[in-house]
Amino acid sequence: MIKVGVVGATGYAGEEVIKILVNHKNVKITELQAVIDKEEPISDIFPALKGKIDIMCRKPDPDVMAKNVDIVFLGLPHKISMEVVPPFLKAKKRVIDLSADYRLDPETYKKWYGMEHKDKGNIPSAVYGLPELYADKIKTAQLIANPGCYPTGIILGISPMLKAKAVKTDLIISDSKSGTSGAGRKPDLALSFCEVNENLKAYKVNEHQHKPEITRILSDVAKSAIDIVFTPHLIPMNRGILSTIYMKLARAMDTKAVLEIYKNFYKGKPFVRISPEGKLPQIRDVVFTNYCDIGVKVTGDTLIVVSCIDNLKKGAAGQAVQNMNIMCGFNETEALA
Amino acid sequence: MIKVGVVGATGYAGEEVIKILVNHKNVKITELQAVIDKEEPISDIFPALKGKIDIMCRKPDPDVMAKNVDIVFLGLPHKISMEVVPPFLKAKKRVIDLSADYRLDPETYKKWYGMEHKDKGNIPSAVYGLPELYADKIKTAQLIANPGCYPTGIILGISPMLKAKAVKTDLIISDSKSGTSGAGRKPDLALSFCEVNENLKAYKVNEHQHKPEITRILSDVAKSAIDIVFTPHLIPMNRGILSTIYMKLARAMDTKAVLEIYKNFYKGKPFVRISPEGKLPQIRDVVFTNYCDIGVKVTGDTLIVVSCIDNLKKGAAGQAVQNMNIMCGFNETEALA
Amino acid sequence: MIKVGVVGATGYAGEEVIKILVNHKNVKITELQAVIDKEEPISDIFPALKGKIDIMCRKPDPDVMAKNVDIVFLGLPHKISMEVVPPFLKAKKRVIDLSADYRLDPETYKKWYGMEHKDKGNIPSAVYGLPELYADKIKTAQLIANPGCYPTGIILGISPMLKAKAVKTDLIISDSKSGTSGAGRKPDLALSFCEVNENLKAYKVNEHQHKPEITRILSDVAKSAIDIVFTPHLIPMNRGILSTIYMKLARAMDTKAVLEIYKNFYKGKPFVRISPEGKLPQIRDVVFTNYCDIGVKVTGDTLIVVSCIDNLKKGAAGQAVQNMNIMCGFNETEALA
Amino acid sequence: MIKVGVVGATGYAGEEVIKILVNHKNVKITELQAVIDKEEPISDIFPALKGKIDIMCRKPDPDVMAKNVDIVFLGLPHKISMEVVPPFLKAKKRVIDLSADYRLDPETYKKWYGMEHKDKGNIPSAVYGLPELYADKIKTAQLIANPGCYPTGIILGISPMLKAKAVKTDLIISDSKSGTSGAGRKPDLALSFCEVNENLKAYKVNEHQHKPEITRILSDVAKSAIDIVFTPHLIPMNRGILSTIYMKLARAMDTKAVLEIYKNFYKGKPFVRISPEGKLPQIRDVVFTNYCDIGVKVTGDTLIVVSCIDNLKKGAAGQAVQNMNIMCGFNETEALA
Repeated sequence: MIKVGVVGATGYAGEEVIKILVNHKNVKITELQAVIDKEEPISDIFPALKGKIDIMCRKPDPDVMAKNVDIVFLGLPHKISMEVVPPFLKAKKRVIDLSADYRLDPETYKKWYGMEHKDKGNIPSAVYGLPELYADKIKTAQLIANPGCYPTGIILGISPMLKAKAVKTDLIISDSKSGTSGAGRKPDLALSFCEVNENLKAYKVNEHQHKPEITRILSDVAKSAIDIVFTPHLIPMNRGILSTIYMKLARAMDTKAVLEIYKNFYKGKPFVRISPEGKLPQIRDVVFTNYCDIGVKVTGDTLIVVSCIDNLKKGAAGQAVQNMNIMCGFNETEALA
Repeated sequence: MIKVGVVGATGYAGEEVIKILVNHKNVKITELQAVIDKEEPISDIFPALKGKIDIMCRKPDPDVMAKNVDIVFLGLPHKISMEVVPPFLKAKKRVIDLSADYRLDPETYKKWYGMEHKDKGNIPSAVYGLPELYADKIKTAQLIANPGCYPTGIILGISPMLKAKAVKTDLIISDSKSGTSGAGRKPDLALSFCEVNENLKAYKVNEHQHKPEITRILSDVAKSAIDIVFTPHLIPMNRGILSTIYMKLARAMDTKAVLEIYKNFYKGKPFVRISPEGKLPQIRDVVFTNYCDIGVKVTGDTLIVVSCIDNLKKGAAGQAVQNMNIMCGFNETEALA
Repeated sequence: MIKVGVVGATGYAGEEVIKILVNHKNVKITELQAVIDKEEPISDIFPALKGKIDIMCRKPDPDVMAKNVDIVFLGLPHKISMEVVPPFLKAKKRVIDLSADYRLDPETYKKWYGMEHKDKGNIPSAVYGLPELYADKIKTAQLIANPGCYPTGIILGISPMLKAKAVKTDLIISDSKSGTSGAGRKPDLALSFCEVNENLKAYKVNEHQHKPEITRILSDVAKSAIDIVFTPHLIPMNRGILSTIYMKLARAMDTKAVLEIYKNFYKGKPFVRISPEGKLPQIRDVVFTNYCDIGVKVTGDTLIVVSCIDNLKKGAAGQAVQNMNIMCGFNETEALA
Repeated sequence: MIKVGVVGATGYAGEEVIKILVNHKNVKITELQAVIDKEEPISDIFPALKGKIDIMCRKPDPDVMAKNVDIVFLGLPHKISMEVVPPFLKAKKRVIDLSADYRLDPETYKKWYGMEHKDKGNIPSAVYGLPELYADKIKTAQLIANPGCYPTGIILGISPMLKAKAVKTDLIISDSKSGTSGAGRKPDLALSFCEVNENLKAYKVNEHQHKPEITRILSDVAKSAIDIVFTPHLIPMNRGILSTIYMKLARAMDTKAVLEIYKNFYKGKPFVRISPEGKLPQIRDVVFTNYCDIGVKVTGDTLIVVSCIDNLKKGAAGQAVQNMNIMCGFNETEALA
């Protein structure tokens, strides 16, 4: 039985990590921490957990955390995570960081997040925790940079075609639509019910901070510099990201041929499902699951890919547990199927 | 042409007052103020207003406001309004206050709002702005205490039976369901989309600050002390309040007879509509209108009344304009029909 | 390993039974049937099930079903179930019927459902499947009448007080609010998105067909005839029922004393959770779980009880599986925790 | 006072036409018809109309309609409209058809709508009712083919760049997101609340029947054959269409320069508003209005255009009334501002 802890236990991602881990047969949650006004049982904060886990949620204390756990999940805002990671690494704990703090090189980080990185030394050793691409490195990683929600669905949707050199690389568009939990659990007028409900908007068009993460990984897959046009939209629903991706085929190919590329690429990957020809996935197929469902359609020389995930599962907490399962040699699907 | 201004122009009620008044043929909006970081055209804050009204929204300045307008609408939080009202009254302006600050006597106010009232002197002259009950006093009022959203629908739903002495007064229950805009436009985790959507809760059960306002007016109607049990609920929709009211009949009476009481009580009142026997109103019938729709059903000795309003129209801004129309001798329905 | 089948596999309740049972370690789904145009894998109908269960969903054939399973779940509309139950009983299969067809005596059934019952002979042997009240009978039952969604939450919310003779029985009101999946999965204009969203209504006020089921069971608990006033409301959310119940105390009692009654009544019941004093449950605490959460508040001589369930879990499929667990001697919480 | 009638008065578009026209000072609604089970006052079907218009809604009878009105609005499904149009034209009535039946040449119609057109003779004289492009022809038209909801927003979003020959014509993508009322008012499982809410999907990818309408008009604007990639998505909200349009610039140009093109193109058009540089429109800016709001952003050689309309106003009923205003010489914005 491995002991795990969560810092940031009261955010949406932290809550989700807890909900998954209470059903995990190989681990036990031994420490929960969050920036809170008063310490209280986690089941008072989230009554849904009552009867499943009733330990206290305490204020952040890295020493206590390090003493009580083998693996730490960090469900913290970016810019905060990098202050907490170093002590855990020093204490030889394995860390799964759900923030963006270890996903980019220091220069790119500064450009997109607007500040000098405070823990540059640990960035090189961080492994990008997308198991479908980097499972081997994840096995032995001490520090996991768990992917962002948009990047997860988009990278999984594009990678097979880049790897197969089957699309032109000068025009890739991802028109992405996200449920509201992707923005985190915080008081914010722009996220209030009446502002989001019965509304719809594009935001941070091609300027979203997830863009450099996407292009970094896609470039690694393609072995050449890849740029994309990325338009995020906010949708009046709680969970889920659907990305509609447009690519230009490098050579004539029908839907069936494209599907073969995807099926081969994801053979043996338990959490990617490819829709049969003529069907496209929708959010209801993946919500509350760790699946990424992908469907494709060729029209002329244009390839349209639709990729769906639950942003809190495959796009955050589920993927974090998937990484832990790989790191610890557990069944990759334990507590996630 | 009467000149009007709005303080608190960026709140939901303020926004709604503006949207109504741009279509009002007897008034012109000449001054808009709100607590904002930088002054900008109101149509930049609410792009929906572009092309309809483009004047600046400025930081609060009572002197400027008093100089530029004949009537002021106050869409401010309670506890703030009472600091702004006195200077306007002194400047001989007429004031329609949408907050709770002038709806209760000072002692009750202190008990329910937790602080000493700062403008006790003006409370006695404030007229409760429910036109269906107090139109005569409203005509000549200088200061209107515009009713709360819950009280509007509940008082209109109960008053006819109290007036007719047709119900027992020892058990009146209002089980009320409100859309989320009733809570105001502000950053608040409890009002964020993911907390409200796909959720439903009772809150402040029988302890909501609108309760003393309801009992005060009902007691005035009944000419005896009336208490009620009042349970508010938060509903995942933007606008609308539906109150399901339970009363015990004082004497045997069928649905038809009760309907007669309601129809007589509201004869000539343009904004109350009584549903025909066998039908009950729903939110979609009243949303974006100034109507209060009321339906009734007798079962045994129990009377069930369903009352529906749009909380931002009849429950706030629409009623405020209705009051202004009465105060100024305009057509009561101008800009509201 | 027990073999189970579902008739009506494509309805919301049927879908939910399947989703629960694929995670159940003691059973295997061996047959799925539904009224469908063409037979296809259940994972084509519900892509979310892909990779979890891929057997065919076939057109209804009781003989085939009876041959292939030990227990049958019926997720059929009322009036249809009673045509399917007799052959299964004759074939010595155990049946869990999620419809209303075996919950009432034939006369009451006729009055509320508008037709002569077609299988009167089997009604007396049907056991009402509310485990918190009837676990002993459920163990040996061959035919379970699985409770309705409204009745589950309301009966659990009222029973402790009736049993304790702590409330007056001449006035019990349940103001109930239900998510839309409670109405079933069918084309119906009144259930279409644009009619339900941003709307709210009371319907079938005190005339809902679940009323006689509620009063029958409450009368059994109280050992005297109990009537209630029951107002259902349709809420713009997918899942969940919150009932706000009003009762008159028979003797003075504070919230703490009432809570004791509830805690004692539900001691050892794994799926009822009582909220601590000062807190009330909300839908988000129970959605996607099999819990019924209950909170109480005394104000004067009025007791307000708030009861929350997920209508598809504790209100239908989850409770059906809970019944199966008890019938088969499995852990009561297997696949439900 | 011109007399108008509506056939299909109980659909969403018909309801909206009525709601607009009751506030129109130059017209009077004298006849309402729809396929209904029993004839009843329109205000019984839509209680929101009570007190505003209470005439009967009758079963379809073209003779009666033609006798009672000067102009007919047809809010009928496609394939039905073309059976009703000929008698009205013969009776010298002016017709505004909100269906797709007169928007395409007979061959294209057959290909996309799957049947031979039944009134080919009247197609050539039908004027495409997009006032921003065809106001002159609309003035004298007897038969208006009122544009589809998707085409309205997309054509207005693309036309200025095509007219200016400022974009390449070999790659134009419209990723469009629509509220659910766009699908019409009808019982349909796919449109039921629980299927749409908390879900999101692409559908009819590049195969939606609005595509040929879009390419026909864009080709007319560009004076050359234009094709687009068109992906519609269904969004869990009642009203509104947001199209995110991707184009490749034909020559280097910054956002400001593109904005100039749009401002010039729409100069003097009361219902198109161009967002200032750095801002993009959202659904809340246009919902319940007849505006089409357009914002643009250049990134590299890619132009991203965001176009927002209310699908029932500018995308259907509002535009129909705008056409009527132009046809009759009324103020173009009468009843729409």
